[in-house]
Amino acid sequence: MKKLINNPNEVVQEMIAGIVAAYPNQIEQVKGTSILMRKGAPTPNKVSIISGGGSGHEPAHAGYIGKGMLDAAVLGEVFTSPPVDQVYEAIKAVYRDPGVLLIIKNYTGDVLNFEMAAELAEAEGFHIAKVIVDDDVSVEGSTNTTGRRGIAGTIFVHKIAGAKAELEGTLEEVKAIAEKTIHNVRSMGMAISSCTIPAVGSPSFNLAEDEMEIGIGIHGEPGIERKPLAPAKEMTEELVEKILRDMALQQDDEVAVMINGLASTPLMELYIINNEVQKILENKGINVYRTFVGEYMTALEMGGCSITLLKLDEELKTLLDYPSDAPNFLMK
Amino acid sequence: MKKLINNPNEVVQEMIAGIVAAYPNQIEQVKGTSILMRKGAPTPNKVSIISGGGSGHEPAHAGYIGKGMLDAAVLGEVFTSPPVDQVYEAIKAVYRDPGVLLIIKNYTGDVLNFEMAAELAEAEGFHIAKVIVDDDVSVEGSTNTTGRRGIAGTIFVHKIAGAKAELEGTLEEVKAIAEKTIHNVRSMGMAISSCTIPAVGSPSFNLAEDEMEIGIGIHGEPGIERKPLAPAKEMTEELVEKILRDMALQQDDEVAVMINGLASTPLMELYIINNEVQKILENKGINVYRTFVGEYMTALEMGGCSITLLKLDEELKTLLDYPSDAPNFLMK
Repeated sequence: MKKLINNPNEVVQEMIAGIVAAYPNQIEQVKGTSILMRKGAPTPNKVSIISGGGSGHEPAHAGYIGKGMLDAAVLGEVFTSPPVDQVYEAIKAVYRDPGVLLIIKNYTGDVLNFEMAAELAEAEGFHIAKVIVDDDVSVEGSTNTTGRRGIAGTIFVHKIAGAKAELEGTLEEVKAIAEKTIHNVRSMGMAISSCTIPAVGSPSFNLAEDEMEIGIGIHGEPGIERKPLAPAKEMTEELVEKILRDMALQQDDEVAVMINGLASTPLMELYIINNEVQKILENKGINVYRTFVGEYMTALEMGGCSITLLKLDEELKTLLDYPSDAPNFLMK
Repeated sequence: MKKLINNPNEVVQEMIAGIVAAYPNQIEQVKGTSILMRKGAPTPNKVSIISGGGSGHEPAHAGYIGKGMLDAAVLGEVFTSPPVDQVYEAIKAVYRDPGVLLIIKNYTGDVLNFEMAAELAEAEGFHIAKVIVDDDVSVEGSTNTTGRRGIAGTIFVHKIAGAKAELEGTLEEVKAIAEKTIHNVRSMGMAISSCTIPAVGSPSFNLAEDEMEIGIGIHGEPGIERKPLAPAKEMTEELVEKILRDMALQQDDEVAVMINGLASTPLMELYIINNEVQKILENKGINVYRTFVGEYMTALEMGGCSITLLKLDEELKTLLDYPSDAPNFLMK
């Protein structure tokens, strides 16, 4: 295992210290926890939004804490759901009367722990709403998942729900727009190289030197197929076709595009993939309103990418464009 | 070679198409060239700023095109200086009367080609100034370099000179602030894994499974030493000590910090390194004004990082904080 770390069992705590040190005016740690929150949260009269999950997907989710996005992120150990008590502590830390929305990626452990924390909080009279993101069209259930997995499309849910909350939407309104975003977003990924959980020390899976895996999950969960590495054009066509088969997109519809690097794949290659995606959409008469290319939801040092399409209407466009000062999703 | 590309000989052109497709309202290609420029450039009454160099260091430099940073970036082939005629075309494309500043990383080919292009333009009566960035303290000359190499500190030069130009500084003033930034910035890098130039197809160098190289360049040029991979704490101490030995920093001085990933190193590890850097600076009584953690100047898919410190005064702080809408250096 070749990593720039100290103790493999302390990577999350040391990372948390490094995040707070990087953004001391924006992000603070809830003392004694693995919760990061927007400095000064909760904001009066605003629904608070919490997301989180296992670590190893940075900048997800701590990098999306800020005005216009998340109020708190709960950080589990690497590829491990955060425990119930941490989610519950996060709710208490950022709670204000309009209530709290939990944005949960669809993994069995995450769903269970976030839901149990919500029940605990509701028993105390807190208003809690929750949505589950399952944007990954590759497989209908996988290791650690009942139903589709939640992957990079989650960031669009953070962004749009966060904007609605900033505009003082009610808990019901913020939940409704998050659900609309989930309804409209689809993603799919692929990998060319594996990753190693620090505390494990050996690769989570292996791919041959000429092999790629289509539809792989962000923890290395099996996808659809392993096959010889194809040129970017063919690979992109396969991912986009699968996404479009699952979306009701018509000519002249507008979408946001996210080309997400899993970590080891350089920006150069993500731009080459973006070029292919845009050509496919242009040929189908689908208009691209806005494009995001970069690392948004990674998988430790895995090589590969995911492609996300979000179908937009005027309401979603306005909220997508709303300012954010989250360190990893700055928008003016 | 395992890359998400099509033709290894067309990666730069396909990447350019992917960048323009991602930011169609901000960046345009100068037709028939490998030059990207700010849409609508040149801006009246503003010094134009051009940088560039070999590709493979994305987001450097095209991602820094925008209001408050660069007016154009000249993209060479991978790890190859852009030819004289392309630099000359870039000057012509963004030229306005206050003149053009060229920000050049210190590599023999880059310096030669940018200087020859400047001479051609000056012969036509254009006002050209140039600065050479040599922030890498690791070695005093290396493959392709006379004197120190220019690495991630270059981004701070883009940012600060770009702000001064936006504030309608004269060519002399913009050049002077760029030189002051160069005088105040120091960087050093290290690698744990190699990279492969697409058109070559085999790794540029090899490191053993337990080995790191301290002081390596962003093209894999030899550094100071190869030795067993150390914990992040020790490695960071070594880089920061070497940087500080070369800088006249006193207690209570203020700095900007950049923790730059070379590409394969996940953000999690960059935050762990940031935590170590901040502890060292705190122990020395050096105040951190602002921190940047991410991928700013990469080396294809190389694994590793660089650390940059920029000594600040009130003038540099104001310019560092000035708004930028460059896609990879957004600041409000």
